[in-house]
Amino acid sequence: MQVHAYGAHAADKPLEPLQINRRATGAHDVQIDIAYCGICHSDLHQVRSEWAGTQYPCVPGHEIVGRVTAVGGHVSKFKVGDLVGVGCMVDSCQTCSDCEEGLENYCDNMVGTYNGKTDDAPGWTMGGYSQQIVVHERFVLNIRHPEADLAAVAPLLCAGITTYSPLRHWGAGPGKKIGVVGIGGLGHMGIKIAHAKSFDLILNTVAAPHDLDAFLGLLKRDGTMTLVGIPAEPHPSPSVVELIMKRRSLAGSLIGGIPETQEMLDFCARHGIVADIELIRAEDINTAYERMLKGDVKYRFVIDNASMAA
Amino acid sequence: MQVHAYGAHAADKPLEPLQINRRATGAHDVQIDIAYCGICHSDLHQVRSEWAGTQYPCVPGHEIVGRVTAVGGHVSKFKVGDLVGVGCMVDSCQTCSDCEEGLENYCDNMVGTYNGKTDDAPGWTMGGYSQQIVVHERFVLNIRHPEADLAAVAPLLCAGITTYSPLRHWGAGPGKKIGVVGIGGLGHMGIKIAHAKSFDLILNTVAAPHDLDAFLGLLKRDGTMTLVGIPAEPHPSPSVVELIMKRRSLAGSLIGGIPETQEMLDFCARHGIVADIELIRAEDINTAYERMLKGDVKYRFVIDNASMAA
Repeated sequence: MQVHAYGAHAADKPLEPLQINRRATGAHDVQIDIAYCGICHSDLHQVRSEWAGTQYPCVPGHEIVGRVTAVGGHVSKFKVGDLVGVGCMVDSCQTCSDCEEGLENYCDNMVGTYNGKTDDAPGWTMGGYSQQIVVHERFVLNIRHPEADLAAVAPLLCAGITTYSPLRHWGAGPGKKIGVVGIGGLGHMGIKIAHAKSFDLILNTVAAPHDLDAFLGLLKRDGTMTLVGIPAEPHPSPSVVELIMKRRSLAGSLIGGIPETQEMLDFCARHGIVADIELIRAEDINTAYERMLKGDVKYRFVIDNASMAA
Repeated sequence: MQVHAYGAHAADKPLEPLQINRRATGAHDVQIDIAYCGICHSDLHQVRSEWAGTQYPCVPGHEIVGRVTAVGGHVSKFKVGDLVGVGCMVDSCQTCSDCEEGLENYCDNMVGTYNGKTDDAPGWTMGGYSQQIVVHERFVLNIRHPEADLAAVAPLLCAGITTYSPLRHWGAGPGKKIGVVGIGGLGHMGIKIAHAKSFDLILNTVAAPHDLDAFLGLLKRDGTMTLVGIPAEPHPSPSVVELIMKRRSLAGSLIGGIPETQEMLDFCARHGIVADIELIRAEDINTAYERMLKGDVKYRFVIDNASMAA
């Protein structure tokens, strides 16, 4: 089935309208009309080939929310009309120990929602900057927020789980001091953090190269700073002394597994948590990318995919 | 009291015989005739001022073993004639939460066995390349190895505890795969490791700058590589992708606390574990440094401090 989408034909080309193919709904598939798709910094890295291996045309987008329009014969968890989401993954081997533990995000054969290897033509996956997507039921999430919140739920599918997962894994909770680096610009946040007490955990979301030592130095003994952003160029090398002197750790965390993604969505629905977003039309994606690079967004652009209709 | 020692008068000068002062034995002090002192790579870093702040004359040495020759009036744990050891610390604040947990090594006011701040003249501590040392009882360890092993016990006081502590902290034990980087040269060991399976923990003892990614890439999901060596120049910056993709950690660990140092010594005594050493006379220290830099030692030089007598 041909659907409208927005994508780029080369690293130095803007995104433009194009037509892409979606597979027929298989026995375990869920077909989704995409209502909204968040714009993640990763989208820009991939489209501009700042990460290796981008295949063109590249249709990014992995913060997808919408409504089920068809389900395969073996699908039991979803029915037509359900509000659902799709995040950074659309498939994995489903049999390795990582997958069995519900940590499909660490599966060696995890398939990204865009630029991932697939049997579907043309051989790589196309993301959520499109009208529709067909995804294996395992990688589809229930959304229990009110429908009015739907656009602001979209960023939870990547930004939400990418921060929720390390906070959960490294034991954020009562009595723990948590720092977050990268809300509205490093410098701004760095100043706030430097004036606070020392931390058990620092969640570092910055996707640009920066001095890690300034933050490592704020960790208590046995504290961890977890990186979730992948810069296009390396950070300056962190100080071994900062790590050794307080038995600190510098760690990484990649999105989150499907069970914890559902847990996060349900947690956010119960607590009324959504992202702060600016809704845009598809034709404004390129402008949004430029504004995102300047930090001129509070805090997430979300595409109204209805604007892609011819 | 004046005692013979070996030390350097400047970063670019060889070590030579000199006289240093040791304080009178205070109420909580233990006076020790030093039998042997191991040569640690840190000694060389400090003497040559490759780490900031070396004060001269500098008498290194923090792998000290010997026999108690006097104890202060309040000392109950030791008596004259006991075989004892002193490691990398000779004092700390003794009151902070780190000290209360027996992790004096992470105390902000930990006093190193050499080049540490002290009220004793000349204002900084002098280490184990000397005939005698006077140390607060808290920082003195019992040695339960046979006396014949004494020289080979010396390296346990730094090299032993520095590796024991992270192995213990990060849960080395049955069912865990542990890699050690830095036995007899990086390249040699790197090749062996690269042919083995993936690891839960890698203990990286290399004190020279090297590519960390080659080893990070061998860690399983949730694995940790712990650095215990401090290079004079930074390592190349580690790959954020290697950390993120498997939720790996790059950590540091600094020697170990006094209780776990005693635990390690007792563990080694029970299991007959000592270091493989080459015993040298004090006048051969400078040659030993050059050979250490070339990796020409299996695996630790230990000074026979009796050779310092005039």
